[in-house]
Amino acid sequence: MNTTQTVEMIKQVKDGNILTPQGFKTDGVRAGLRYDKNDIGVIFTEKPATSAAVYTKNVVQAAPILVTKDSVEKEGKLHGIIVNSGCANAVTGEQGLKDAYEMRKLVAEKFGVDEHLFAVASTGVIGELLNMEKVAKGIEILNPTNTLDAASNFETAIMTTDLIPKHCAFEAIIDGKKVSIGGAAKGSGMIHPNMATMLGFITTDAVIDSTDLLVALREVTNDTFNQITVDGDTSTNDMVLVLANGEAGNEPLSSTHPEWSVFVELLKQTSETLAKKIAKDGEGATKLIEVNVHGMGTKEEAQMLGKTVVGSSLVKTAAFGADANWGRIIAAMGRSGMSFNPKQVTIAFGDIVVLQDGEPVVFSEEEALAYLQQDTIVINVYLKEGTASGTAWGCDLTYEYVKINGSYRS
Amino acid sequence: MNTTQTVEMIKQVKDGNILTPQGFKTDGVRAGLRYDKNDIGVIFTEKPATSAAVYTKNVVQAAPILVTKDSVEKEGKLHGIIVNSGCANAVTGEQGLKDAYEMRKLVAEKFGVDEHLFAVASTGVIGELLNMEKVAKGIEILNPTNTLDAASNFETAIMTTDLIPKHCAFEAIIDGKKVSIGGAAKGSGMIHPNMATMLGFITTDAVIDSTDLLVALREVTNDTFNQITVDGDTSTNDMVLVLANGEAGNEPLSSTHPEWSVFVELLKQTSETLAKKIAKDGEGATKLIEVNVHGMGTKEEAQMLGKTVVGSSLVKTAAFGADANWGRIIAAMGRSGMSFNPKQVTIAFGDIVVLQDGEPVVFSEEEALAYLQQDTIVINVYLKEGTASGTAWGCDLTYEYVKINGSYRS
Repeated sequence: MNTTQTVEMIKQVKDGNILTPQGFKTDGVRAGLRYDKNDIGVIFTEKPATSAAVYTKNVVQAAPILVTKDSVEKEGKLHGIIVNSGCANAVTGEQGLKDAYEMRKLVAEKFGVDEHLFAVASTGVIGELLNMEKVAKGIEILNPTNTLDAASNFETAIMTTDLIPKHCAFEAIIDGKKVSIGGAAKGSGMIHPNMATMLGFITTDAVIDSTDLLVALREVTNDTFNQITVDGDTSTNDMVLVLANGEAGNEPLSSTHPEWSVFVELLKQTSETLAKKIAKDGEGATKLIEVNVHGMGTKEEAQMLGKTVVGSSLVKTAAFGADANWGRIIAAMGRSGMSFNPKQVTIAFGDIVVLQDGEPVVFSEEEALAYLQQDTIVINVYLKEGTASGTAWGCDLTYEYVKINGSYRS
Repeated sequence: MNTTQTVEMIKQVKDGNILTPQGFKTDGVRAGLRYDKNDIGVIFTEKPATSAAVYTKNVVQAAPILVTKDSVEKEGKLHGIIVNSGCANAVTGEQGLKDAYEMRKLVAEKFGVDEHLFAVASTGVIGELLNMEKVAKGIEILNPTNTLDAASNFETAIMTTDLIPKHCAFEAIIDGKKVSIGGAAKGSGMIHPNMATMLGFITTDAVIDSTDLLVALREVTNDTFNQITVDGDTSTNDMVLVLANGEAGNEPLSSTHPEWSVFVELLKQTSETLAKKIAKDGEGATKLIEVNVHGMGTKEEAQMLGKTVVGSSLVKTAAFGADANWGRIIAAMGRSGMSFNPKQVTIAFGDIVVLQDGEPVVFSEEEALAYLQQDTIVINVYLKEGTASGTAWGCDLTYEYVKINGSYRS
């Protein structure tokens, strides 16, 4: 099966979400941690799910990250995850760790399962303790179901400065069975390579061992969640967690399974869709920027070049102003740490070539302006260092970003 | 001589500038490259000066950088430098390189010296060709003198989005002779470690070989110019150039000279003063942020931690909003790539401790707000990894930064 065939086997599910795969329930409620908004959410599966997770690479890791690692590593199985917004429970010392364990205990008791069968995630202000009374109250009133409302309640419960709930689902036939993957995510600020203030929760009904699930997740994360940036900051709380409850009844998936690539592509499409939604809904953003780098020696080099360009404050402000300022793009490339011949660089906004083999091209400013005023901008960079490509996503830098972060303690 | 004694021997010269050292002349004129502002400047010394320079580390280097390298490397001597603003002459292909050489030739002819005895610098928009007719006209009307007006004309001729001309001078007695160092600089945007859209021109009447001058410049640059950041972008045109014309008549300075440390300190004070002025006048900035990191294993690690903190968009917006958001500081430290124990981190705004050994401290929000509303903010970070310290400087991120860069092609 070649890549094109694999991609063709994947179908996006209209209005799909974390409940698209069979056997999952969810809910989100108001516990009073985030004004009068939903702030505690849960995902639950009766049939325990194999699980895999990737975490922030920040040296400073929040208490819930430590607790989730403990749960995931114990036996690679989970019944679900409990999440709160409004407080990150990060840099909260010993008390913070106790609180995260207590949160896990409370939700496990409510669902009548062992403590280590729940994961915990938090997002919000750093350095403040969780109000455990409110957390307990919130967990108490959770009532997970598999309705569209339930999915929406969960998606809003994990938001902080996000404006838009983020969800998607994809499906494919594997071993003659319909296998689905759904996801919910939150992002907004502190979004940068190697996970960011970003939480991603992915559900699937595939049958797959936790070890194989982790292999797939790591591979996919490097090309998707780790390739987005909002402001270059990396949070203490980032996590992407996958739960696979096996309800689809396929043969166990692993790299030797003939349809392994279909499953990986399902996971990739889900992750990329969520990642792009996070980038586009970055704090204060008005547009999504996609940077495609072609012709580097390795994919990693191409990805690093793309990330440097899409993370440049000068490129981001130029995108906001719809200014076809390609000089800032090549300047950012030049400081990326990657080595390349500047005389062989070609840059295009969409199809509008502005630099050809290192020489400026006369282009229509009007046409470029019209292109850059769209809500998605694609920057194509072509080099002659090799044959590898890589993509990164980000957003523009606006007055609104400054406003949000100049006044909000998060 | 210990460090304190050395520092005490240095005197700042009130209103000092590049003309404070003996034997230099300068001018700045309007050639029409930058609306109706000064845009071509020259520094000239009758007695040829030994010279040393450090350049941008960007892979993409502008034409004037290549020409200046050619001049400086030829015999380590210069009669002066010609500078223009309004156009960076970067990514301008073969024509751009020809233009930079032509600019050097024109100024050398005017002053009747060999071509390779002039350096060339440019700053402004990337990707546009220099208007050589205007450049020639500008060079024609240059008339260097050693008046205060002449210094001011030069300082404004090198500005782009800078709001404030930047200059300073320091002096000390070496071998019983008064030795002076003066400087002029421009900065504003694209300012980041390893040189940035930053030009620094330093004059001195010290007697010193070009090899020794370069040793001193490199040492000092790492602790000063390379420790400032405005937006994380590094320009294609950065350069710091020192001219030493020997008019002071001291014994030749080198590391074996008993007062070598005095000269290095003179150069350091000049560079640090200019660097801080650049940071404080960063595009849209309302305040200078200084981050002092204490207790790391090496100076380089401490410097990298400081740079990451001061370069964080979230720390910068919090500074703009006078928000004592220390969580963003430790989060930035955590993604710096440096390894440290988060449980041993103490953070203070000035003297106001907000985190003590990894545990949040209850502090007066009112007091913190008053401190953070000042036009210089000092963030002190204490670790227990070692005994080395390092400092970095930057500025806040404001609406004005977005405005300037969302509309100005630079």
